[in-house]
Amino acid sequence: MSSSDIFIGETIGTAILILLGGGVCAAVTLKASKARNAGWLAIAFGWGFAVLTAVYTSAPLSGAHLNPAVTLALAIKDDDWSNVPVYWAGQLVGAAIGAALVWVAYYGQFQAHLTDKEIVGGPGAETTSAKAVEAREKGAGPVLGIFSTGPEIRVVWQNLATEIIGTVVLVLAILTQGLNDSGKGLGTLGALITALVVVSIGLSLGGPTGYAINPARDLGPRIVHALLPLPNKGGSDWGYAWIPVVGPLIGGAIAAGIYNVAFA
Amino acid sequence: MSSSDIFIGETIGTAILILLGGGVCAAVTLKASKARNAGWLAIAFGWGFAVLTAVYTSAPLSGAHLNPAVTLALAIKDDDWSNVPVYWAGQLVGAAIGAALVWVAYYGQFQAHLTDKEIVGGPGAETTSAKAVEAREKGAGPVLGIFSTGPEIRVVWQNLATEIIGTVVLVLAILTQGLNDSGKGLGTLGALITALVVVSIGLSLGGPTGYAINPARDLGPRIVHALLPLPNKGGSDWGYAWIPVVGPLIGGAIAAGIYNVAFA
Amino acid sequence: MSSSDIFIGETIGTAILILLGGGVCAAVTLKASKARNAGWLAIAFGWGFAVLTAVYTSAPLSGAHLNPAVTLALAIKDDDWSNVPVYWAGQLVGAAIGAALVWVAYYGQFQAHLTDKEIVGGPGAETTSAKAVEAREKGAGPVLGIFSTGPEIRVVWQNLATEIIGTVVLVLAILTQGLNDSGKGLGTLGALITALVVVSIGLSLGGPTGYAINPARDLGPRIVHALLPLPNKGGSDWGYAWIPVVGPLIGGAIAAGIYNVAFA
Amino acid sequence: MSSSDIFIGETIGTAILILLGGGVCAAVTLKASKARNAGWLAIAFGWGFAVLTAVYTSAPLSGAHLNPAVTLALAIKDDDWSNVPVYWAGQLVGAAIGAALVWVAYYGQFQAHLTDKEIVGGPGAETTSAKAVEAREKGAGPVLGIFSTGPEIRVVWQNLATEIIGTVVLVLAILTQGLNDSGKGLGTLGALITALVVVSIGLSLGGPTGYAINPARDLGPRIVHALLPLPNKGGSDWGYAWIPVVGPLIGGAIAAGIYNVAFA
Repeated sequence: MSSSDIFIGETIGTAILILLGGGVCAAVTLKASKARNAGWLAIAFGWGFAVLTAVYTSAPLSGAHLNPAVTLALAIKDDDWSNVPVYWAGQLVGAAIGAALVWVAYYGQFQAHLTDKEIVGGPGAETTSAKAVEAREKGAGPVLGIFSTGPEIRVVWQNLATEIIGTVVLVLAILTQGLNDSGKGLGTLGALITALVVVSIGLSLGGPTGYAINPARDLGPRIVHALLPLPNKGGSDWGYAWIPVVGPLIGGAIAAGIYNVAFA
Repeated sequence: MSSSDIFIGETIGTAILILLGGGVCAAVTLKASKARNAGWLAIAFGWGFAVLTAVYTSAPLSGAHLNPAVTLALAIKDDDWSNVPVYWAGQLVGAAIGAALVWVAYYGQFQAHLTDKEIVGGPGAETTSAKAVEAREKGAGPVLGIFSTGPEIRVVWQNLATEIIGTVVLVLAILTQGLNDSGKGLGTLGALITALVVVSIGLSLGGPTGYAINPARDLGPRIVHALLPLPNKGGSDWGYAWIPVVGPLIGGAIAAGIYNVAFA
Repeated sequence: MSSSDIFIGETIGTAILILLGGGVCAAVTLKASKARNAGWLAIAFGWGFAVLTAVYTSAPLSGAHLNPAVTLALAIKDDDWSNVPVYWAGQLVGAAIGAALVWVAYYGQFQAHLTDKEIVGGPGAETTSAKAVEAREKGAGPVLGIFSTGPEIRVVWQNLATEIIGTVVLVLAILTQGLNDSGKGLGTLGALITALVVVSIGLSLGGPTGYAINPARDLGPRIVHALLPLPNKGGSDWGYAWIPVVGPLIGGAIAAGIYNVAFA
Repeated sequence: MSSSDIFIGETIGTAILILLGGGVCAAVTLKASKARNAGWLAIAFGWGFAVLTAVYTSAPLSGAHLNPAVTLALAIKDDDWSNVPVYWAGQLVGAAIGAALVWVAYYGQFQAHLTDKEIVGGPGAETTSAKAVEAREKGAGPVLGIFSTGPEIRVVWQNLATEIIGTVVLVLAILTQGLNDSGKGLGTLGALITALVVVSIGLSLGGPTGYAINPARDLGPRIVHALLPLPNKGGSDWGYAWIPVVGPLIGGAIAAGIYNVAFA
């Protein structure tokens, strides 16, 4: 694979991943969405099938890492670090693009949700209601959760541990793919298994922190949240931002270590 | 594939798609349905597995496009336009047949829902209650949503953008199938992946407009809604009808362009 | 396949099908079940994965028809009627065994549900409360639905049509399996597709009648319901019993006809 | 496979199984979990995909039994008992590790749930509220269910029968895998089928006892529950503990018997 194929593949794939993953969070959260309040099962399947779609589409170009922790683990496993920067760059760019596309697809829903009124005339036509001003005073509504993860209970060691544990499970399943499928890579069946592993992690380990298990999945959209002209959006919780970056990277490294000791 | 196989395959496949897809909307919406209020997750899985069933059944005959936007994208990709008219014709005819079959399968439920009374003696035996007359004055009940899509917030550029984005994701996943499965086509595993991609789009991008992502899926049933003798059915919202036709076609063309530039 | 393999395979397979299919209805319906009120999505996935488990387990012995309508359709397709009686016999016997096993697995739940008190000492230790006597006067509780299907609105032509339409979809998908999978039969991937088709039919066409789409699935458990010593169980609704037998057989025949004309 | 590969594979696999399986119970049960009250469908899919992840990851090392009843059934089927002790040891150790990891991942949630206050300073910083003292007096909260199974209605013969029936279904599906997949073992597709069979058993037969269908799944976490320093945790219900051990072992033996008579 050429560097440009890797970059383009990771950018497209991670953009699809975050568009669909952030999309299901928007769908379940925002006012005037047909899927509002569809619940945690919708979130877990939504993110899992986002992985399926993204991996399946980008696998022919870049092998579909779509996650800096996966790239790190594969680099450790194979002791080949040459393509790590281009993978990571594509993943971060793609994640930012995906988060911006969520905003486009749910533009009216964001406006209605954050300003407490429906828009009917397109962007620019809305005025801010008194209730919206009050909301802005009070700080962020729940829309940061459409972009980035956050803990229900803020305990650094536990939040970090939960992200590490979830990522170990994810990456170990990905690394054993070669042993199960005779090295055929991520196409089709591997994409399906990875997707269902992500559904599993979401259902089982997502409760405390919202399961980033992927630094790009969290950091890229958080940057976009900080930049987007969303009304009354509140802060981007930068104090927490390092945990869903560092935790998954540690988890990926641990998984690679387990693989090299026990499976290789 | 002969033209008649293509036409028959697309007609059968799209009829199954709309029978099952419209069926789940009827099941979740109508009075006196065992699945009433089963929620958005049921809708998303219902449409996804409708795609699975339809693609799987019709793939041996026509390759199972079942969507004018897919046919357009494949024509652009291969620069072969010879079969486009017969595909599109089969898709529109099939969609209309499927929508009519939903009406047959849920006949009593439609009557009970729209006339506010249960029927016990079959068609012809019912009389219209005062409440039903009042409902007819007020316009359509929610049954148009069993046939066609509609936006929660009516903003033309966003509605169009959401349909375009959803269709790009769908068609890109379909186009990369040949790269993942060594050209084996849509049978079995491809049908499963496509189905889960549609579940994903439904969960993640269905909130604003109800994800037509297929011109025939929306236009065929809308025509049937306009023609069927449903009591108190209200209008067919023809003012919106062009968006779920034009949006998906633009999306299919964009996906083919991305494919030809990045993947081919 | 020998006649005894066919009979044993169909008996085991259909017993598993009804044990798991009737089981999910019991799980969602009965008092003192952890899954109570889990909803229609649980019913639809429960029946679908019941098909998966049953087909997968019995396919090596009998090819896993597990449904008289499937046996009929395959006989019409291949014009080979020699094994039809042994398939049908195994299916009916298996369905009855499966329904009896549901009763065993949910014994305490049936007692608690039907007699309005919990049992703590095993069978024989319970006495009938005044409330249970009153319920017995009023007729059947909802437990017949754990065994057999029934319509929400009782319109003969519609009930029959809904069963026919659902069965056509099911059988057509099964018949095209040979074209998609190069004649490899029902093992593994075919079992999975069939299961998801059944989930689809349940979600989309189950609303009006509860989707028997299988004569043995309905008739065998109905006989068991009539025979079991359930307190306050009410009648077995024999007036409706012919529809989920005749409808699916007509549907299977129509699907075989469509297959022979359009696909063969 | 060497004994050390078997032990390591079963330990890793069963640890993942219980981490994800116990995890979904924690996610749905505990206060301050994003997945709280996600319902029985989340439980059933959560355990099923836990099986998928665990089997897929450990299959290359040990063949992924992950269940003493499966190990027993395979020993009976092949009349080869040489590796049974090492399989069972790995399964029990892995189950205990997995249960401990659930506690780590949900540490703050356990504290908040059991002491009726949120912790903000990490372990050691919390004080016990009056309400928590009262709860401790009254005995266990619902957290035992995160570790081990328990019956809704305590009838020994039924509880045992339900566990036997569920395990027969599970093990029979696993034993027929060799016939369906030409002896390719549990990798990928077999893992997926087994996972969906477990979803099926959960939906259909989980209502009365919570479907242990695996002695290690129940006993290992029960020991960990007894040992962990959880506040107000109450008893570990050792009076019931033999049923989810003995029932599944009987079920595994019966399934092996059925297989040897009918399928071999």
